[in-house]
Amino acid sequence: MGGRLTGRRVVVTDSNEFMGPDIAALFREEGAEVLADARDLTVPSASGDLIRDAGRVDILMVNLAITYSPGFVQDIEDAELDRMLDRLVRPLHRLVRAVLPQMKERGNGKIVIVGSAAALRGQPRRSVYAAARGAQHAYVRTVGVEVAPFGVNVNATGQNFVENPTYFPPEYQATEEFKKRMEGVPAGRLSTGREAAQFLLFLAGPESDFFFGQVFPYAGGWVA
Amino acid sequence: MGGRLTGRRVVVTDSNEFMGPDIAALFREEGAEVLADARDLTVPSASGDLIRDAGRVDILMVNLAITYSPGFVQDIEDAELDRMLDRLVRPLHRLVRAVLPQMKERGNGKIVIVGSAAALRGQPRRSVYAAARGAQHAYVRTVGVEVAPFGVNVNATGQNFVENPTYFPPEYQATEEFKKRMEGVPAGRLSTGREAAQFLLFLAGPESDFFFGQVFPYAGGWVA
Amino acid sequence: MGGRLTGRRVVVTDSNEFMGPDIAALFREEGAEVLADARDLTVPSASGDLIRDAGRVDILMVNLAITYSPGFVQDIEDAELDRMLDRLVRPLHRLVRAVLPQMKERGNGKIVIVGSAAALRGQPRRSVYAAARGAQHAYVRTVGVEVAPFGVNVNATGQNFVENPTYFPPEYQATEEFKKRMEGVPAGRLSTGREAAQFLLFLAGPESDFFFGQVFPYAGGWVA
Amino acid sequence: MGGRLTGRRVVVTDSNEFMGPDIAALFREEGAEVLADARDLTVPSASGDLIRDAGRVDILMVNLAITYSPGFVQDIEDAELDRMLDRLVRPLHRLVRAVLPQMKERGNGKIVIVGSAAALRGQPRRSVYAAARGAQHAYVRTVGVEVAPFGVNVNATGQNFVENPTYFPPEYQATEEFKKRMEGVPAGRLSTGREAAQFLLFLAGPESDFFFGQVFPYAGGWVA
Repeated sequence: MGGRLTGRRVVVTDSNEFMGPDIAALFREEGAEVLADARDLTVPSASGDLIRDAGRVDILMVNLAITYSPGFVQDIEDAELDRMLDRLVRPLHRLVRAVLPQMKERGNGKIVIVGSAAALRGQPRRSVYAAARGAQHAYVRTVGVEVAPFGVNVNATGQNFVENPTYFPPEYQATEEFKKRMEGVPAGRLSTGREAAQFLLFLAGPESDFFFGQVFPYAGGWVA
Repeated sequence: MGGRLTGRRVVVTDSNEFMGPDIAALFREEGAEVLADARDLTVPSASGDLIRDAGRVDILMVNLAITYSPGFVQDIEDAELDRMLDRLVRPLHRLVRAVLPQMKERGNGKIVIVGSAAALRGQPRRSVYAAARGAQHAYVRTVGVEVAPFGVNVNATGQNFVENPTYFPPEYQATEEFKKRMEGVPAGRLSTGREAAQFLLFLAGPESDFFFGQVFPYAGGWVA
Repeated sequence: MGGRLTGRRVVVTDSNEFMGPDIAALFREEGAEVLADARDLTVPSASGDLIRDAGRVDILMVNLAITYSPGFVQDIEDAELDRMLDRLVRPLHRLVRAVLPQMKERGNGKIVIVGSAAALRGQPRRSVYAAARGAQHAYVRTVGVEVAPFGVNVNATGQNFVENPTYFPPEYQATEEFKKRMEGVPAGRLSTGREAAQFLLFLAGPESDFFFGQVFPYAGGWVA
Repeated sequence: MGGRLTGRRVVVTDSNEFMGPDIAALFREEGAEVLADARDLTVPSASGDLIRDAGRVDILMVNLAITYSPGFVQDIEDAELDRMLDRLVRPLHRLVRAVLPQMKERGNGKIVIVGSAAALRGQPRRSVYAAARGAQHAYVRTVGVEVAPFGVNVNATGQNFVENPTYFPPEYQATEEFKKRMEGVPAGRLSTGREAAQFLLFLAGPESDFFFGQVFPYAGGWVA
């Protein structure tokens, strides 16, 4: 292939986690200049600094990662909810706020949020994680509409069942719980990270100019 | 009518704001013992205190209110997002966490979150408000599934275009902007607060036993 | 209870099947004058005749039933699709077309379509059934918006896992396939027909005046 | 670009209408062998004949077109509903039924239904058209799940506001009604047919292997 992102400057956040490595690899193959950044975005000033350091950003990939242990509602302390908000919600707004002015001024730009299907379909023991991911989706819906008149596209995925070190480490894939969960997934398998990155490429590339504020499930048919 | 909630103990939060007064009035007409509570739930310990003070809670009405000025993404400071999370998201988790143990032990209970359609359909200049409301919906979806096996029903509305002093004061209803917005609403009018409370009554009452983790738009056809 | 439908004239179609008996029984308890009609609505003139015979209709309950054997796509003949359309789609349009003029003239009226969650979430071997049920939902969305300005409310449910002789006969409830299916339903049980009728009562009664063209899943959390 | 469909045999139905010309042109640029077929699919045997004539079909583009005059429910005769079903629903099932056996046997294949956003969001005067388009979407959801275990991907779009001779002729684009409608579309413009075809290319190509039974709005943010 190649060349679908030639000349585009792309920022990828949390670049060593979640979809970061797959995004960086695929987007580089497609000709993008990728700024893979791994700084700690829970620091309030970090998001603004990142965008300022980056200079021109044609495409912002909001890839925000967190690891957690599922738990019942009554066992989840305030601190765990705060951790979710600090990693998944606050940096989202800071990043988008920092990058939008230059995109609106130029009259184009793409912002893609790598979200989670946990916000789209209920499962036990994901309450505060789902809440933070749900905040991302609703934010995308409204910001997507707000900036549409400026030619900026803001969209999100809601992914699940994508093979990546953060959520599906090999040891978990060997468990009975995992096999049981896969029975409920029409695909019957995990997506590779590269496959998932290909859809993110679509949303980041020139072919997504007519999408505004849309949330796309990417979960092997588990949500459709 | 009357009597649909006879003998039920109901907690209504932010009882002087948003849907609080209409809920309290209608539920009392239906025979409920209503604890209308107006304490400041941004205080971390307040939610737990409220549930402890209340004793037995058959029905928890999570009515969380905030007023805000719509603004473009690039103008919204961290403090405004934090204010949304402090009023709409943190108290939700604290309230649900505090009340669930007694409901699970008894094998029944209803939790109804009065949510916003702003989380379901994008509109300009509502970004962080929509995010907080979206967190509520995703939380409901997952908690609703988690506690279903215990006979507890957790559901939410996503309302808009309901006449209430918080979001539609009379002076706003007189503006051209308001009239323009109503053109896009199939109902062509605002709902009264009492009408909206009647749907909340359905969700709080004995007729909603088969609903788990569901989000119901209530917006005059603007979202369906 | 009682009295929520006092003085209302209600037509229920396919009155001996699907939700027909439960609707008729509950609505009568609530004071309605119920015309439970069981004529064969595959006859092109039957729907128009029914409405004409009925005279004033305040509430039309479009309860359309069909029994079928699930089958793989490649095994489903044209005749089976036609049978679905003849029983579930054509009569819907004929009934609604016949009753709308009097409702629009009076400036009020309720039309409730008893639909299926099969149209909302995919399952193997329901292809043409789901298609016909999906036609109902999309029809409701658009007609609901069209007639909103006239004060007429058109809404639908998408039900599943409701105990009724048509879809969940006792012998099927005893099978392993049934037990396996219930594992995927948060409710962990079937709804009684009466419970399901209570939500239909809400949609048919005076408390649903602000709903227009909305589709409500009723499936024990299986769709939310 | 080029080469994303090299060696793939594609059938496009109603090839002179709706998205047919744009699909054929773009897919050929990407290396596909396109069988653009314009036969009348209301003839019951035509769909089966088409697939038989085509031989190996790697990708089936179910592009079904109809022109109609919007009308109020009470003015739409049975014949108009039948025309919708004859052009949009019956051929869909016949085409899918005819092509699935070879795809299931080979263990791969893509079926993409070019659908309409009219099925996803209500608008006045589209009742029977929306119903037929809604049947398509529900059919896709269930068939997509049914054939997922065989490695076959069945997905659909729900498009609106795409420039094409069938729905948006230049003379309509000049009307006030059109301009008024566009105010409610975040994109603020029509999509070109080529842009829309690019998303269809994504769904038809090798990058969509993890999507099963999904319905994608494509409507400039009007549905998201």
